[in-house]
Amino acid sequence: MTSRKSVVCKDKEYAKCALAFHKKMKGKLEVISKQQLKSEADWSTMYTPGVGAVSSHLAKHPEQAREYTIKSNTVAVISDGSAVLGLGNIGAIAALPVMEGKCAILKEMAGVDGIPLVLGTQDVGELVRTIELLSPGLGAINLEDISAPRCFEVEEALKKKLDIPVMHDDQHGTAMVVLAGILNAAQVVGKDMKKLKVVIVGAGAAGHAIARLLLVAGIKNIVVTDRTGAIYVGRKGVVEYKRKLAKVTNPNREKGSLDEVIQGADVVIGVSGPGTITKEHVKSMADDAIVFALANPVPEIMPSEAKEAGAKVVATGRSDFPNQVNNALAFPGIFKGVLDAGITEIDDAMKVRVAYAIAGLVKKPTVESIIPKVTNPKLVKTVVKAVQGK
Amino acid sequence: MTSRKSVVCKDKEYAKCALAFHKKMKGKLEVISKQQLKSEADWSTMYTPGVGAVSSHLAKHPEQAREYTIKSNTVAVISDGSAVLGLGNIGAIAALPVMEGKCAILKEMAGVDGIPLVLGTQDVGELVRTIELLSPGLGAINLEDISAPRCFEVEEALKKKLDIPVMHDDQHGTAMVVLAGILNAAQVVGKDMKKLKVVIVGAGAAGHAIARLLLVAGIKNIVVTDRTGAIYVGRKGVVEYKRKLAKVTNPNREKGSLDEVIQGADVVIGVSGPGTITKEHVKSMADDAIVFALANPVPEIMPSEAKEAGAKVVATGRSDFPNQVNNALAFPGIFKGVLDAGITEIDDAMKVRVAYAIAGLVKKPTVESIIPKVTNPKLVKTVVKAVQGK
Repeated sequence: MTSRKSVVCKDKEYAKCALAFHKKMKGKLEVISKQQLKSEADWSTMYTPGVGAVSSHLAKHPEQAREYTIKSNTVAVISDGSAVLGLGNIGAIAALPVMEGKCAILKEMAGVDGIPLVLGTQDVGELVRTIELLSPGLGAINLEDISAPRCFEVEEALKKKLDIPVMHDDQHGTAMVVLAGILNAAQVVGKDMKKLKVVIVGAGAAGHAIARLLLVAGIKNIVVTDRTGAIYVGRKGVVEYKRKLAKVTNPNREKGSLDEVIQGADVVIGVSGPGTITKEHVKSMADDAIVFALANPVPEIMPSEAKEAGAKVVATGRSDFPNQVNNALAFPGIFKGVLDAGITEIDDAMKVRVAYAIAGLVKKPTVESIIPKVTNPKLVKTVVKAVQGK
Repeated sequence: MTSRKSVVCKDKEYAKCALAFHKKMKGKLEVISKQQLKSEADWSTMYTPGVGAVSSHLAKHPEQAREYTIKSNTVAVISDGSAVLGLGNIGAIAALPVMEGKCAILKEMAGVDGIPLVLGTQDVGELVRTIELLSPGLGAINLEDISAPRCFEVEEALKKKLDIPVMHDDQHGTAMVVLAGILNAAQVVGKDMKKLKVVIVGAGAAGHAIARLLLVAGIKNIVVTDRTGAIYVGRKGVVEYKRKLAKVTNPNREKGSLDEVIQGADVVIGVSGPGTITKEHVKSMADDAIVFALANPVPEIMPSEAKEAGAKVVATGRSDFPNQVNNALAFPGIFKGVLDAGITEIDDAMKVRVAYAIAGLVKKPTVESIIPKVTNPKLVKTVVKAVQGK
């Protein structure tokens, strides 16, 4: 095993460091044997002839795979490379370093074994069938960096077909952490969470999932915008998933651009790209505005600008500003929780429980602390308990 | 990480030990991060934002995947569960413990990272397409425990389609170690290897590959038998791959049962099942007969019986008899060799080099020592050199 001292990166030049680091390491993961292979008993128990007894047993009792194999603790982290970070459709191979990173996080934070897989197709049918065929030996599926609306179709089809948990983390991981942040932010500004008016800028995978989870959590006045403006029932030329979203959001049928619908909003959540939220937008919001600018690495609006424009609480996706919305707060504990308890579905009620649990880790929420850090020692245990309803 | 003391198994009750061991371990592999995730630099270099630079770089230079990702050192060990050990078509889940075992061997012996994958289909087209779609992030493919003749079709199609090495180990791993054993056995009995008459009992994946590799190595008189008897040009009702095999083997067009064609043979290689080779068969062979009885765990004929019937050299697939034909002698070094050198195909010339290299590890072959042990400290290095033609 390689040395595991902390990475040294001078002057926070992370792009440069990451390139050099990845080249030196040639990938971030190793697959190791839990057991050495030295004695005859090692060989004969781990492999033939002993392993034949295990295979024979599982041939008769395939439902016991989790008791005898790595299915017990394995999550495949799978991408087609169609929406990698904020970089877009850069293909399977370019997605691999991100999948490896997620597997490293799964193991380091929660002891879960991740298998990074990048697939050479972006066809919905082929993705679904390939993942279905891979599933017998897997404990759970983490879909990653798949573009909307294909990600919805792939996830929905797999959830129906498979008897193991499936989660597209860009959707649900983000949504859970955003909900956790909103819960504490509402407390900080002294507003009733359920009465907040929330505008979501961006109707992709994350925006869609955030809207749906906030609804489940009881927030009623949510307006989602895309490049055209507000999404509402009856808007022309809108793809199916946005039409469905329109039916459950935007209760006042607000039309028009972001400039218009953001006026008087209590919360704006950017899941789009740099520059889409301006100081003027924030100025037009209600007092004590809450701004989540989650585009990465360059947020929709910089925290300093948002504050100057009157925002009270600001969150971003970055670790170098306060209040980082980081999926790693949720997914390691989620997968550990479902695997350990043999839970076969990650449902809305579970997601809300996890969001409340993550929010609860911040004992006294303040303007600069609405979201716990990934280094919080209670984090994974707390999420696991929430997953398991304990 | 779990304790890595040797397994304790009393009285060599390996079936019992293996069941208890697998249940305790819940699978034999872990996926670990080469790097800890503690400092901000760890997170920012391993994951966002730094990893974005690596993904961007690979989007422009996908051909550099081996320099920056686990593609450099990763072999997928893939089965459809159609021919697991000697247990037959017991399905994907029942195959998983064997795939895990091979991955453990890859890492423990050669430092190669194996990903065990069991697929929920036995359709040739689906297997080929699924593995093709998985290939972008993989360094090589080890096909395993796939039944004949599908294994030939799957391997052939993948070798054509993919730019990474593909090897069905049940065929070629076995063939290389058998050839190594034959080389030394011929020396022990003082016969010219190329002039041996070899009878192969069993025309499945292993029998087929052994015949083809012995031909490449210069042995001319090879007769392959199946349940019906000798395979020869013109035999009626024979499947395509056996017809092709008939064209290159059995130069004297011998017909009839094993009882007939084994008479006067110098070598018999059993890759079938218990009881197919009898003492009478061995008695009818030439003097100083060489008997490879490779069915596992119960050989075609027990070594003591073969010896009583006049065999000079006997090999089996078992570790508790002398001369174990063990695929683990070949595949770890093969995959390390191709991965480290960026070799994209495992060809016949390479297989012959590897067989000679393995044979050469036995300095003075004797009746009880024609094949080195997997614990031979020079083994992997020697195979790697042979793979790379050094």
